[in-house]
Parts: sequence; structure tokens; C-alpha cells
Amino acid sequence: MNKNMDELTYRPIGIIHTGFRDKKVAPIQGVFAKDAKGEVEVFPEYADGLRDIEVFSHVILIYHFHLSDGYSLISKPFLKDEQHGIFSIRHFKRPNPIGLSVVKLKEVRGNILEICEVDIIDGTPLLDIKPFVPQFDHRDNARSGWLNSLEYEGESGKHRSE
Amino acid sequence: MNKNMDELTYRPIGIIHTGFRDKKVAPIQGVFAKDAKGEVEVFPEYADGLRDIEVFSHVILIYHFHLSDGYSLISKPFLKDEQHGIFSIRHFKRPNPIGLSVVKLKEVRGNILEICEVDIIDGTPLLDIKPFVPQFDHRDNARSGWLNSLEYEGESGKHRSE
Repeated sequence: MNKNMDELTYRPIGIIHTGFRDKKVAPIQGVFAKDAKGEVEVFPEYADGLRDIEVFSHVILIYHFHLSDGYSLISKPFLKDEQHGIFSIRHFKRPNPIGLSVVKLKEVRGNILEICEVDIIDGTPLLDIKPFVPQFDHRDNARSGWLNSLEYEGESGKHRSE
Repeated sequence: MNKNMDELTYRPIGIIHTGFRDKKVAPIQGVFAKDAKGEVEVFPEYADGLRDIEVFSHVILIYHFHLSDGYSLISKPFLKDEQHGIFSIRHFKRPNPIGLSVVKLKEVRGNILEICEVDIIDGTPLLDIKPFVPQFDHRDNARSGWLNSLEYEGESGKHRSE
């Protein structure tokens, strides 16, 4: 068996602290929760890797959905009642429970990043931080499929009931 | 010891096939390589999770940098000579060698996604696919730090030498 098929093992580089104790209270996406604050605690042995991160307004956090218990290949997105394939939605019940959030970087203090626009549950293990680079990560012509039909109401994660 | 501090184990859900045999020939970022094509092979047991993905114009691939050998907390980005913390750049020598690319989705045939705007090395193990959702993933006011000073020349990954 090819070694690429083997298990891949990672180790958390930090912990994400927020006010959201569980999935029921966390915002659906951080962009709808401008005031939702949090702290990224990078373990001291990795703190040197944060050098110059303060020049970015936003960072991408990659983390482990630690409360996810198993996966489902077909599931409902948070904002809709229709079922879709798990790779077509952002639900946490994924074969590899890896989460991705773009958050706003407010301040860096040593190994702590103060962030906002956070949709992450308290205690989430952090796997990686990447700078958010509009030149790399924006796609002006992107179509978002079924999500185009959503009518968002404000910034609190509320949505039109259907 | 808290279980969050433990090792986290994932298993590839597929393989990314491209024409790039190694790091020297792969584009620096897919957005600079509009014509670079590739195929995402999702293993058959996960293919049901692709349902409805064809309505998205772009997807986010999360993958394992399988050629990365160890990490460096301070490194040079691909486009510059100055050193930065690894979490301020997109280099592959990360504590957890997890890669992230936004690619354009051209066609879906069963468990195969035909993609372009690809910057990924052939044979890369795939960890997750997420829909690229402009409402979630764009940040109109994002500043990209030291990258603002780059002057890109066309779409081929060439850059101003400094």
C-alpha cells in the first residue's frame, strides 16, 4: 500500500478560545458575527512562526472540529433544509473533521492573537494559521451555487426560514 | 494531558493528479496559472459526499504537503527574499504540513473533479473539499501586508525580481 494512503498524523499548535461553548450558540459563519471575539493561543514552542503576522488584516485558521463525532456523506447545511453532499457544504461532520475560518486579526501579543468575526467553538485545537491573501484567496467570478438564493438578515447569523 | 493535545489522525479521501512532478515546476499560486489543469480523484467510498458540488464554480482543497520534510518556523515566501514567520507565509514547511488551494471546478464525472487554476504537486493526498462561498470566504477590506508591494506580471507565476 502506498504510504500516501496511510494515516496522517498532526499535532495541535495551539488552542482557540471563544465565548461559544457549543455548536448551538456559535455563529454559522464568522462574517455574520462581526463582534464575536476570540483568542488564538499558539503554544510557546511555535510562537516564532508568528513573526510579521500583524501586517495582515485577516488570517485563515485551520482547526480540528473536536466535537464532531463520526461523519455523514449527505447532510443539511446550517442555513437550509435540503440535503447535500458533505463536500458541498461546510458542516463539521466530515470524513476528516477539519475546519477553516477566515477571521479578522485585531492584535498580536506574544503568542496570543486577538481575533474577531469568529465562528469557532471554545477549546478548538488549532492545526495551522495562514495569512489571508486577497490575491491568492479571492475569486471575483465565483458562483456559490444554492447559497446564492439565501437572503441574509444582518450579521447575527439569523436567516430566512423556509 | 488533555485529549486535545494528543495527535490527530486523518486519512486521505483522495488523490490530486496534476502535471507538476515537483515543487520546482508547480505554480506559486493557482490564481497565477489559469490554464494549469488537474484532476481530483475522490476515493469511491467518499464519492456520495460530492453530491451537488457541480453548482459551485470554485472549491477549496485541503491537502497534505506530502513532499514536505520537517518544518521551519522562519522561512522565505516564494515571491520574496525576506524571511517571515511560517504562519505569515504560505510555504509548505509548516509544523502541520497542510495545504489549502482555491481551484476552479470545470466538470464533475462520478468521483472525479476536473479542475484548473491548480498549484498542487502530482500525487498529493487530499484531506477535504469545501465549497468556496464568496459570502463566507471573501473579505473586501482585507490587507495583505508585505504582499501589497508585489507587482505581479501576468498569470504565469512570474514576479518582479528585487
